[in-house]
Amino acid sequence: MRMRKKKHLDERLSQFSNLVDIAPVTEDYRKVVEKKEYIDFSEYFGNSNPLQMEIGCGKGQFIFELASRNPDINYIAVEVNRNVICDACKKAQDGNINNVVFMHCGAEVLNKYITPGSIGRIYLNFSCPFPKKAYENRRLTYIRFLDIYREILADDAEIHQKTDNMHFFEFSIEQFTAGGYKLKNVSLDLHNSSFEGNIITEYEHRFSSQGMPIYRLEAYK
Amino acid sequence: MRMRKKKHLDERLSQFSNLVDIAPVTEDYRKVVEKKEYIDFSEYFGNSNPLQMEIGCGKGQFIFELASRNPDINYIAVEVNRNVICDACKKAQDGNINNVVFMHCGAEVLNKYITPGSIGRIYLNFSCPFPKKAYENRRLTYIRFLDIYREILADDAEIHQKTDNMHFFEFSIEQFTAGGYKLKNVSLDLHNSSFEGNIITEYEHRFSSQGMPIYRLEAYK
Repeated sequence: MRMRKKKHLDERLSQFSNLVDIAPVTEDYRKVVEKKEYIDFSEYFGNSNPLQMEIGCGKGQFIFELASRNPDINYIAVEVNRNVICDACKKAQDGNINNVVFMHCGAEVLNKYITPGSIGRIYLNFSCPFPKKAYENRRLTYIRFLDIYREILADDAEIHQKTDNMHFFEFSIEQFTAGGYKLKNVSLDLHNSSFEGNIITEYEHRFSSQGMPIYRLEAYK
Repeated sequence: MRMRKKKHLDERLSQFSNLVDIAPVTEDYRKVVEKKEYIDFSEYFGNSNPLQMEIGCGKGQFIFELASRNPDINYIAVEVNRNVICDACKKAQDGNINNVVFMHCGAEVLNKYITPGSIGRIYLNFSCPFPKKAYENRRLTYIRFLDIYREILADDAEIHQKTDNMHFFEFSIEQFTAGGYKLKNVSLDLHNSSFEGNIITEYEHRFSSQGMPIYRLEAYK
């Protein structure tokens, strides 16, 4: 049954022209790809507009809104979960969203496929906090990932992070600074701050409406 | 009346052998002292124990408790307010606390009097947040001060900050990282964290008992 489901998903994924499927066969997102094959995104998009990226795009609610607000920016939406990215690809295709391309892979292989210094901004929205200490190396702000982001980010690029998880945010501040990033526009209660232009996802709304603060920061090299 | 009060205070302050009065005449704590006269604290304490510092010691509640827990560390307690430091000196004298010396001055002159690299730790406890943007340059984590602290801190030294003011804490994170400091043991709710050994002052207790979180961080070079 599981095999049939998987095969079915493979078939569905293969139909999407807006998907770069790095790991179509394996679910092991910790697998390290050795060779480097930089993807030419200007060829895909048909223009050389600036590139930005969301890592962990989920079903794409945030990136779709962002892409619609900024038609002159091309977005790479990265997601490791096959089922989830399948839904996102479908939505983008149905919605005729042309400035978003999806990558199915884990963050640890991004520097194998993304040209160094080519990304102007990375968004990390409500990434899984992996609360257990034993899994802290899977958190998307673990220093191993920050080093990978540093490779693909332009010199004046930024990482914008939002989370509802206090301990994950504390951890992130520590990791960013240990990794040589500086921080600006730090907010410990985003929805009661002066920050404008926030794109609120359904997840964010749910937490915020329960009175939980949303944490946000911008990291730069 | 004011003059008489001031004269009386001058007389009181002059009695304390545990006080280094940098600015006995002027209340203008923004005055910049030009010449450098490094103070030999080992001569004052009669030993060469490690030196740590609290900037903005108030009436000394925190530093007295710290000094009593760590008799082998010498503490320099800095306070700009004359009335307040007078009370602190009196308490230390009456309590026969021998490992604390007071400095009456603003933080901006510390590098004129403190030997470079001689301080092992700086404590900033509930410093005035100066909420108005126009006064942000008076906040004790403003980058101008962080540069001064960097001069007097040893290479492996740390700055430990606590505050109940969210925006001041956000500002501090930004300034510390802009000033090249890294951050560790960041806590956005100290009293519900796993941190041990916290010295709770009356002020801290009052805020915390109202359900307000206490923010804390450790900055290092």
